[in-house]
This record gives sequence, structure tokens and C-alpha cells, in this order.
Amino acid sequence: MAGLQVDEGRKQMRSQDSGTDTSNIDYFFNPKSIAIVGASDRRSKPGGRPLAALRERGYAGKIFPVNPRYTEIHGMPCYPSILDVADDVDMAIISVPASLVLDVIQQCAEKRVKVAVIFSAGFSEAGAEGEALQRELRDLAREEGIRILGPNCLGLMNLTNSVMASFAYVMDLEPASPKTLGFVSQSGAYGAMMYADATEAGVGFSSFTSVGNEADLEFSDFVEYLLDDPHTQIIGGYLEGAKNGARLRRVAERALERRKPILLMKVGRTGAGARAAASHTGSLAGDDEVYDAFFRQLGIIRIEDLGELTSFAILHRCGRSVEGKRVAILSGSGGRGVMLADKCESLGLSVPEITGATRAKLEEHLPSFGSARNPVDLTAQAGGDPAMPLRCLRALLEDDNTDVVLTDALFHHGDAMKLARELIDIYESTSKPIVLMWRRRHNSAELEEPLELVQRAGIPILPDGIQAAKAIASLAWYQRKAREGRVVDPRSDPAQPARLAELDALLGGAESLSEFDCKRILKQVGIPITREGLATSPDAAVELARELGYPVALKVQSGHIQHKTEAGAIALGLGSDAEVREAYDEILANARRFAPGAEIQGVLVQEMLEEGTEVIIGTTMDPVFGPVVMFGLGGIFVEALRDVSFRIAPLTRRDAEEMIDEIRGSRVLEGMRGKPPADREALIDAILRVSRLVTDRREDIEELDINPLVVFAKGAKAVDALISRGAR
Amino acid sequence: MAGLQVDEGRKQMRSQDSGTDTSNIDYFFNPKSIAIVGASDRRSKPGGRPLAALRERGYAGKIFPVNPRYTEIHGMPCYPSILDVADDVDMAIISVPASLVLDVIQQCAEKRVKVAVIFSAGFSEAGAEGEALQRELRDLAREEGIRILGPNCLGLMNLTNSVMASFAYVMDLEPASPKTLGFVSQSGAYGAMMYADATEAGVGFSSFTSVGNEADLEFSDFVEYLLDDPHTQIIGGYLEGAKNGARLRRVAERALERRKPILLMKVGRTGAGARAAASHTGSLAGDDEVYDAFFRQLGIIRIEDLGELTSFAILHRCGRSVEGKRVAILSGSGGRGVMLADKCESLGLSVPEITGATRAKLEEHLPSFGSARNPVDLTAQAGGDPAMPLRCLRALLEDDNTDVVLTDALFHHGDAMKLARELIDIYESTSKPIVLMWRRRHNSAELEEPLELVQRAGIPILPDGIQAAKAIASLAWYQRKAREGRVVDPRSDPAQPARLAELDALLGGAESLSEFDCKRILKQVGIPITREGLATSPDAAVELARELGYPVALKVQSGHIQHKTEAGAIALGLGSDAEVREAYDEILANARRFAPGAEIQGVLVQEMLEEGTEVIIGTTMDPVFGPVVMFGLGGIFVEALRDVSFRIAPLTRRDAEEMIDEIRGSRVLEGMRGKPPADREALIDAILRVSRLVTDRREDIEELDINPLVVFAKGAKAVDALISRGAR
Repeated sequence: MAGLQVDEGRKQMRSQDSGTDTSNIDYFFNPKSIAIVGASDRRSKPGGRPLAALRERGYAGKIFPVNPRYTEIHGMPCYPSILDVADDVDMAIISVPASLVLDVIQQCAEKRVKVAVIFSAGFSEAGAEGEALQRELRDLAREEGIRILGPNCLGLMNLTNSVMASFAYVMDLEPASPKTLGFVSQSGAYGAMMYADATEAGVGFSSFTSVGNEADLEFSDFVEYLLDDPHTQIIGGYLEGAKNGARLRRVAERALERRKPILLMKVGRTGAGARAAASHTGSLAGDDEVYDAFFRQLGIIRIEDLGELTSFAILHRCGRSVEGKRVAILSGSGGRGVMLADKCESLGLSVPEITGATRAKLEEHLPSFGSARNPVDLTAQAGGDPAMPLRCLRALLEDDNTDVVLTDALFHHGDAMKLARELIDIYESTSKPIVLMWRRRHNSAELEEPLELVQRAGIPILPDGIQAAKAIASLAWYQRKAREGRVVDPRSDPAQPARLAELDALLGGAESLSEFDCKRILKQVGIPITREGLATSPDAAVELARELGYPVALKVQSGHIQHKTEAGAIALGLGSDAEVREAYDEILANARRFAPGAEIQGVLVQEMLEEGTEVIIGTTMDPVFGPVVMFGLGGIFVEALRDVSFRIAPLTRRDAEEMIDEIRGSRVLEGMRGKPPADREALIDAILRVSRLVTDRREDIEELDINPLVVFAKGAKAVDALISRGAR
Repeated sequence: MAGLQVDEGRKQMRSQDSGTDTSNIDYFFNPKSIAIVGASDRRSKPGGRPLAALRERGYAGKIFPVNPRYTEIHGMPCYPSILDVADDVDMAIISVPASLVLDVIQQCAEKRVKVAVIFSAGFSEAGAEGEALQRELRDLAREEGIRILGPNCLGLMNLTNSVMASFAYVMDLEPASPKTLGFVSQSGAYGAMMYADATEAGVGFSSFTSVGNEADLEFSDFVEYLLDDPHTQIIGGYLEGAKNGARLRRVAERALERRKPILLMKVGRTGAGARAAASHTGSLAGDDEVYDAFFRQLGIIRIEDLGELTSFAILHRCGRSVEGKRVAILSGSGGRGVMLADKCESLGLSVPEITGATRAKLEEHLPSFGSARNPVDLTAQAGGDPAMPLRCLRALLEDDNTDVVLTDALFHHGDAMKLARELIDIYESTSKPIVLMWRRRHNSAELEEPLELVQRAGIPILPDGIQAAKAIASLAWYQRKAREGRVVDPRSDPAQPARLAELDALLGGAESLSEFDCKRILKQVGIPITREGLATSPDAAVELARELGYPVALKVQSGHIQHKTEAGAIALGLGSDAEVREAYDEILANARRFAPGAEIQGVLVQEMLEEGTEVIIGTTMDPVFGPVVMFGLGGIFVEALRDVSFRIAPLTRRDAEEMIDEIRGSRVLEGMRGKPPADREALIDAILRVSRLVTDRREDIEELDINPLVVFAKGAKAVDALISRGAR
């Protein structure tokens, strides 16, 4: 397990990904010396707590209390100012009123301090004046090359080397081991609560960082740091809103590559939540659906309560993977087994019926009124033969159709130490995880020792069956995401200069784009569109109609008229030259009446299509994550049910597949009421091309809607499209 | 709180509702004397445990051990047979092998024993032989007038008078107080686990009953008993499947009238779960959607884990009601406040922004960077002024827009005893509930005493914020259900003999019903149908079409052809005499080709309707609950999304409203894309009339489908209908 050794290479400057500077961040976690500016001899004071904790927990570096009001604290010399410290100072902990912080930072700069942890409140969380002060602070720090954590934060604890740079009361708790959870929090107080509860649940932290106002380094920077931290095996966090979605995405992608799971509690889900998050710690919460899509896309496990994090941590630290989703449940209570089977299946796991040789073996071991089917019901009679449950466990693990065993039935009776040893033997004979559900009860003291033995052997013990099922489901999901990886689908020909030029022309031209222009853009990037042409006279319209073949549709084309139906500027199913002529005039007249000043490009003459399945592919520009792609079924499905899925561009092929499968109405695409299935490949292709377009052209495209794209048994065609270029 | 006094009137025979006999059930809970047949001096034996527990817990009645192998046990005389006991015996606890149980019951009968608790396994859970034995047991018991709990059960504990008629190991736990939770379980082992966990969570049981195989008295009987038990304030249970849905419904209705909340864990939700439940304790699990509808309809709170039950019990026992759904959240951590606000809103509660005078008061109390908006963020600075959170609490409670306050922020700092007394003052000055979130931590020992004080004052203290939010949501929901009551909507004219006669004729006639006949039945019960007539010749069809006015639709009418479209036996939008004649012949020809032997009643000539919203109203016969009504939007909404709602007939008006509002696509009925809203009253009326029809005619109607019912801006019409009469 992770010990206290320090990785030698870690103090080098880190690779800076696209403009993000995280240089010197390691000094927060591994400073050789710490000054506490605003130190106090009272441990109830923010300036007194880190001093006490650093000493009590045995921090091995140098500690320099700074406070002009003392000459010594607890027998240590106390300096009037940081400039009076003779030695080098790596880290300054600053606990002074906001009005003094800038002066202190100036002194830190003179002292060549590398990093500062600023507890002080009164910055961006406290109105316009505070915001201005924080900007000054950030500018000064960047100018002087000092990295800042905070201000308005609880600070940081590195539990692997006792850097207790915090004033959180939870520093008093005895840390749990192994220390493998790195935690980053945008809420100090709530983060500390979670720290306390997780510690009590037996989950050890490698480090805990409260990021406060994020004036300089932010949430994602610390998560990124943990990716390279050898102690940290999983990363937990409390997030109200990412400052920079693209950065969090890159960090999450690297985390997935390195197989370090990230579990986040993200709040601001509903109306009231979002409103409060906007006022809290100065964070801007993005739209919840987008975050949710982002998490699913990047393999981030979104948690609702802390138990999900601690259960996952305990399962994950056994080091075994859940290779599939087939769970065998072995319970001393049939009722509990059924409840757990329900829960597993509702979480997307499967609890397959046990058959064949395994079934026969189980039936041999079980009492006649037990059940060998899965959940396996040992019945209360298990007590008659204490080793019987273990024989059943062994049989289940040997079955190729079992990926993981969830059990509660191994310690009720008999010689618990002997059973514990047998259980460990079984565990060591397999590579599959076994999850033991066990809750400490008043009357179970005699089981402490065997359970301790089992725990030391690495077998995950979880107090709550439902949380155990969730942990298994999350780990299975995470491992699938990690296996799939994240290779963005390029989905385009090598750039052809002619095409690029036409795209440039279309996107750089008029202020607003007509349907005709939008569809030419789609065509340029390989998305099939209806056969059509633009007519500027009735004669031209008739000629086009004849070329396309009757029946045809006519639609007015103007960047200023986006709702053509409303304007009466559309005519469908025209069957003859005469109908086309008549419709042409009527449409123009209606359009001019509807929008008198509108610049009219002409009238689009378009083929009528055979029946297919109508879908929408849209994009919008999220303030946090940039271009976001949406998919849904057309018409009432989107309007009445909001049955849509999102992913952040650019997409992998798997992202597109998940978008399609995720909507509730996805069955419609499989063909209903005698219709053939819609062409899934054509749909995936269109989604990926849209993703590529809005990624490449993010400067030019604010929003895009293909509504509808009609998907046929073979192929698909965009029938109408809208591109908004936002503020130029 | 409830003490140990025994209600004098309770030993009378209970009212027997429609054939259900629960006479003498009170002897299970209040026996004056207990014989233990199969008694043992070893407390590890099922026959030894109740003996030990009855004595240790201080059961005040007489105890008679029975076992031919002993002459005395622990100084008490032990009798060779129950017949050797000189005194009267109210209850026999039977712990002998299955093969001896019938003999023992025979002896009990001779002894005029009132009730028997049978631990023995080897009955219906153990194959055909066991089933036969159980039938014999039941018949014997009924013949002799002995009531039975079990067999194959853990027995029963009445914690208010120490009737420990169980062999559950949880009898060793010190019971918690107040003893207000009555619990009934179809799983012994899992029930016992829940008993242990709830006791540890501080929730006291009035009684615990493990019903086992339910050979005689069943789950609902014991729930019903608890309705009249003065100690029991709420009822919890673990249910795999009700033997008799109608009986459970009547019991649940009475529980709602008496304001005793029922909280049930119901398993068998998913495939694997359902399969196992079918084999467990011989129960038959009904369809999960139906159970879910039943619970929602009857105000039964469906729980997923035990924490939901214990949290609810702790909130409920404060005796205050949650009058509305507006929650004020007061937290020492902004982050936690936001998380809780999210959770509350996702549970259907509201966390309204605080405005006006209350906002001003809060802002006066709070530090500048706190938030007064809701969730109210006290910030970590609350410590500077320990009484500040209580001032905020008072302000929130005084606000008319607050129904309940959820808070965690009252004990972090300062003089906790003084704060506790102030909190109690505040609590006593209001009738609104305050829920205090507090989890015991290692370092919070000094808060035990003030928390004890607070708890004794009746303020609910819950360890988990999410569970607290769930408890509030459940209580608010429950109280609304209880206020609304359950008055079934009669929705019919006084029975008119002519109508009844026609209904009898229609339902008692041919084996299978045509659309025409089905719609006449609907019309009889007041559900509007399309204007139409039955033609048996082309001339008659033309005459009908002229009467109705063109265009019309033609459909073949035959009880043997239910899928008319598939048969090509339907023609829509016919505009002239000639088209009608042609269609008439074609339809008949197609129908005869499709189903050569089919008896053809004629051709239905039907008006074509203006556009409206298509919905489905259907019914099916559930094996547990009888007729069940389904509602959904027409076509693809049902087929692709399974977006439907269920209720058990007969319905209240509110049930019908909930069915409409519950579907995800309910917005479609409010009018979309320029359509006016659908006539909600007409829809409610049709649902209620269907409910009444299938209730009154449950012997005649197995399934009914109105598909579609077209709902207009004003009124509605059934366009097609199908009634299946099942096996006659």
C-alpha cells in the first residue's frame, strides 16, 4: 500500500495543457517548510489550528509562526513578519483579515514563497468590493509567481505526510487507512462533513483540498494533480460549477486513461439548488442536463450521497475488477436476496438464473426449502452447518456466469475465525470480487476479530446492501467506460481547400443564414440533404420542380424568416406546374406580409420525401463546456416529453451510440407498426458530422438545428436546418 | 406516550369484513398464558429462546414449558404434553418437527387453546408434500377454531407486554422507545434484520410479527389488527405478495381513515426479483406496476431501504403535520444546503425563495457573505455568534410561507445546553415541525446531553439529510392523501332497469363482442361514442352515410376479427355514395379472405371525426387486485414509451386526475402546437365510467380497451373499443 515515500520526480514543473499553468502546485502537497501568517497559540483560532495540527500529526518539515503580537508560541520562535524568517519558506498559510492579505502576499513574493493557502474571507463571495480585491490578489500572485489556494477556503491536508494546512476541525480525527482517496471540494464546511463521515466509514484520504474562491488554481488543477499522485487511487469531489469545462474534460480524459475513477457530487440540480449555487462561493452552475451528460460521457461517477463514495472506495481498493454485470447473490434471508436482486437489476446489473452444474452443486448443499436459483437463499437453517454457505460461495465463484458475488451469509453461526480463514482461502483462489455485507451491531462484538482478518485480506466489507449493489454497478460501468476509451471520431475527409473555402464563404457571409445556405453547409460536411434548388422566379421554380420530379415542396428562403410555417411561406405536396406557380406567388406575398423588411433570397424547391422516422439533431453553446450536441425524436417527443440526450462535442462513436440508446423512445428507431428499423449507421454518421462541424467551427456557430432529419430504412436526409451564428 | 395498559374492549371478536375472520387474533398479542411445546433449556434452540426471552423480559402471564424429555426447565415444571397443563392456555408456541405439528394442534384443540404460533418448517415452502400437510393443518385449525400464525415463521413479539413468542435472535436487543411501530413481515430473517437496524436507529416497535406461510391468518389480518392497537402509531412491513388484494385494499383504506401511515418494502420489482419471490415462502408476487399504483392510490408509502422507515417514524412521532410542501433549509454549509434543496425539489417538495420581511430579518442576522435566499447559508462564521442560527430559525418559522424547517446548524459552537433550551423554546412556540440533522461523531461526545434534551422535547433528530428530506416528502404526501380521503366516485345514474337489461343482453350474448356491441355497452354507461350505425347491405350503408353526413368510415364488424386494419377490413374518409358501395364490398371480401370462418355481423358506418387528442383507456384483471384501469396517450406513446398509469378499480375522482397527471406526456393534453387543451373533465368522466363498468361487471369483463378515445376541446368520443369476457 501507499506509504510515505515521496516521488522524486514530482517537483518538476508539470506539463501545462493548453495554456493552463499548474507549475509549483506540488509545493502545496509537499512543502519542506511552512510559515503560518496570523499564527495563534489558541487552537480555536483559524491561525492556531494548523500550527497545532502540524505539530501533533508530526509534519517533518520546518514550521514558522508569524504574528507581530507574539515572540514565541508553544516554545517556538514567532516572527513579526515572514520577511524575518531566516530560512526558505515553501508554503505560507495566511490567516489575516482580507484587507491585509495583499501586503502579506507582497512580502511572500519578496521571500520567494512558492505557494500560499489563504483562509481569509471577504473576497469574491462578498460583493463587488471583494471581487475587485480578489482580482488584485490574483494579478499580484501571477505577477510574482506565487500560486494560491483560496481565498475563503478551509485549506488543504496531505494525510500522507501530515501537511495540515487547514483550519478544519476534522483534522482532530484519527485518519483512516489505507490513504487512497484524494478529495477536492468547492464547499469547505460540507467537504469537511464528508471527510468526517468517510473517515468514520473507514475510508482513508490521501489528501483533502478545499478550493474556496479559486482566485488562481482551481478545482480541475487539483484533480489533475491527484492523477499523478502515487498515493491517490481514486478521486472524490464536491462540485458546484466548473470554471472551465474544457479543462475539466481534459483532466477527466486523462483520469480515464490512467484508470483513476473520479466520483463527484454535483449540486445545483433543480431550480432552488441552481439559484443558491449561483450565489455560493461565487460559482456559476451550468445547466444540470449538460453536466449529467458530461459525467456519463467522461466516465465520471455522479454520486448523490457520501455512502456511494465510501462504498465504491472500499470495493475499488480491493484491486479486483468487475468484468461483467452478472451478480450472484448469496443471502441468509430469501427476502433480502430478492430485495438486492431488484436493486441490482434496477441499476443495470443482471442477476441471472443459475443453471447446470452449479445449480446441481448448490442444490446438494442447500436445505430442501432453500433456493438455488439466484438470489441463492441459504435459509435460516444455514446455522446447522456453518461451512455450507462457504461451499455455496465456492460453487458460485467457479461458475463462468458469475462476475461478482454479493453475500451476507457467512458469519452468522459457528466458529467465526475458522470460517474467516476459509473465506480468505476462497477469496485467494479466485480473481473475482466478493462483497461481504456486514453491519456492526451491538451484539456482534465476537465477530470483530474475524471480520478484521477478512478485511486485512482485502475483502470489501460494506455495511449496506443497497450501497454495495450501487458500488458494484458503478465499478462495472466505470470499467466499461475505461475499456472503451475516448477516441474522438474524426468523421471527415482530409480537409479539401475547395470545401473549406465554400464553408468560409457560407459562414462568413450574410448576418443570418437561410435554410438553403444552412443545408449547403451540411452538405459540405457530408450530411445528406434533400434534393432541392433555389428559384427566384416562378419559371425557375417550375423548371426545378420538373427536374426534381413531382410532387415538390416550396419554402421561402430568408435569413429573417425562421418560422416559415407560421408565416404561411411554405407549401407541400405540389403536383403540377400550375400549383407551383400559384404557390410561388402566394408564398412570397405571405412572407412579405409577415416580415415586411425581410431580405428574401428566393424560394426553395424541394423534393417531397417518402416516409421515415423524424429526428432532431441540435447543438448549443454551453457557457461551461462549449458546443453541446442534442439528439431526440422529432415533433411531440421533444416538445411534450423533453425526451432528448446530450453530449459535449467532440464525440466519440460510442457517445453517438449512447445518445441514441439513451432516449426513452429509442424503440421507435427499431421500427414500429410495421415500419422497418431506421438506418442506425446513417444516424450515427450524421450526429458525428454535426459534432465535427460545431467543434471545428465553434467560432462561427452558436446554435444549429437539423429539424427534422428524416431517417429511412437506408440513409437519412436533412429536411430543414437552422444555424445561428450568435454575436460576431 | 403509550404505556402498558391494556385496552379492555379489545378482546371482543372483531368486525369481520366480507368473509374475513380475524376472531381471536388479539390472543396473539395479549395472551394471559403461554405454553411452549418443544421447550428446551438451551437458549440456542428455537424451543429454548422464547422461554428465556419471556422470563428475561418479564412477561406477566403464565408460562408452561411442554416437552416429554424434561420434568423441569430452569426450575419451572415441564409437562409431557399440553394436555397435562392444569390451567387454561391462551397461546401455544409450537417448535416440533413438521410431522408432529398436526398431533400437537389436535391436543391444543382439546385444551381449548385460542392461538398457535408455529415455528416449524417443512410445509408449503417444501414442495407438494409440505403443501398437502399445510392444507391439513389449516383445515384442522379452522375446524377446531384455533388461529394460527405460521407455520415456518419467526413468530411474534409484543414489546409492550413482553409476549416474546419468537425464536429470533433480535429478542436479545434492548427494545427502543417509544414503542409505536407495528411491523409485519413475510420474511422472517430479513424482518429480523430490519428490527435490529431500526432498534439501533432508536425506533421502538410496539410489535413484530413474522407471518411465515400464512396458512390461516395472513399479512393483511395482522396489519388490520394494528389499526386498532393503541400502542401502534405507524405500521411497517415487508411484503412479497398479498394473498388477497381486495382485503389489503380495505385494510389500507381503514388505515388512511384512521391516519395510521403504512410503509411497506415490496420486493419482486424486476425480472430476477419476481422469479425468486415466486419461489419464496410460497408467495405469488403480482405485477410490480400494479402494486406501485395500488400503493400510490391507497396512501401506502413504498420504501426501498430501512432508513426511509426509521426516518419517517422519527419524524412522524413528533406528532406534527407537514401542512404544505414548502421547506426552509438552514445549514451551516452552503454546499450542503444546495444539495438538500436539490434533493427536496426532486422529491416534489419546494424550497421557495425567502422574501419580504423574513428576508430582511435574516439579512440582519447573517454575515454579509451568507445567503438569506433558501437554502439559508449561515456560513462557517456562525460560530462567532452561537445564538445567530436560532434567530434565523425563529424568523423562518414565523414566515407563513414555511411549512417545515430542515436544519443542521444549531449545535456546532457555543454553550450547547443553553442553545438546546432555546431551541426547545422555539419549538414549543410553533406548531410546525423542525427536523434537526445530526449524526453522532467520535468527537461530539459533549453534545450528547443537549441532544438528549432536544430529543426528549420531541424534536426529530435524523442522522442523514437525504433521509430527512425523504421523510418530510413522504409525510407531506401521506397527509395530503389522508386529507383527500377515498370516496369512490359513483359516476352513474341510478340503475335503470331498461339499461341493465340491455347491458345484460350485450354481455350475456355471443361469445365474442364486435366493436359495435362494445360501443353500445360504453354508450349504456354514459361514455360518448362516435355517431354510427350497422349496415348489412351496400344500400343500408349508403343510407346511413347520408344520415351521418360525408365523409364516413366503414369497418367490418365481427367478434372474430379484432385487428381490422390488418385484415384490410376498414376504409376511412369515404366521400360519396359510390365510394361507400365500393368500400362495402371490398371490406367484406377482405374480411372473408382474412378469416374464412368468421361470423360477420355487418359493416359499421361511422362518422369521421375532427382532430383531437387520442388516448387509451384500458382495463385488465389482475390476479391479486382484480380490475385495474390503465390510461395513456394513444399510438406510439404507449407502444414506444410505455407511458401509462394504472389504478385499481373502483376509482375516486382524484385517482382519475392523478392517472392523467402522472404520465410523462401529460403536457400533450394541455394543448401543443396551437391545439387547444383537451377537455379534462370529459376525460375524467370517461375514466370514471370505465372504472364503474368494470367494477360492477367484474364477472363479465376480463379486459376492456377504448383505443382510441378522441378527446376534443369540448367532449370526447370512443372511436374503437374491445371487450374481452375471458373464460365464462
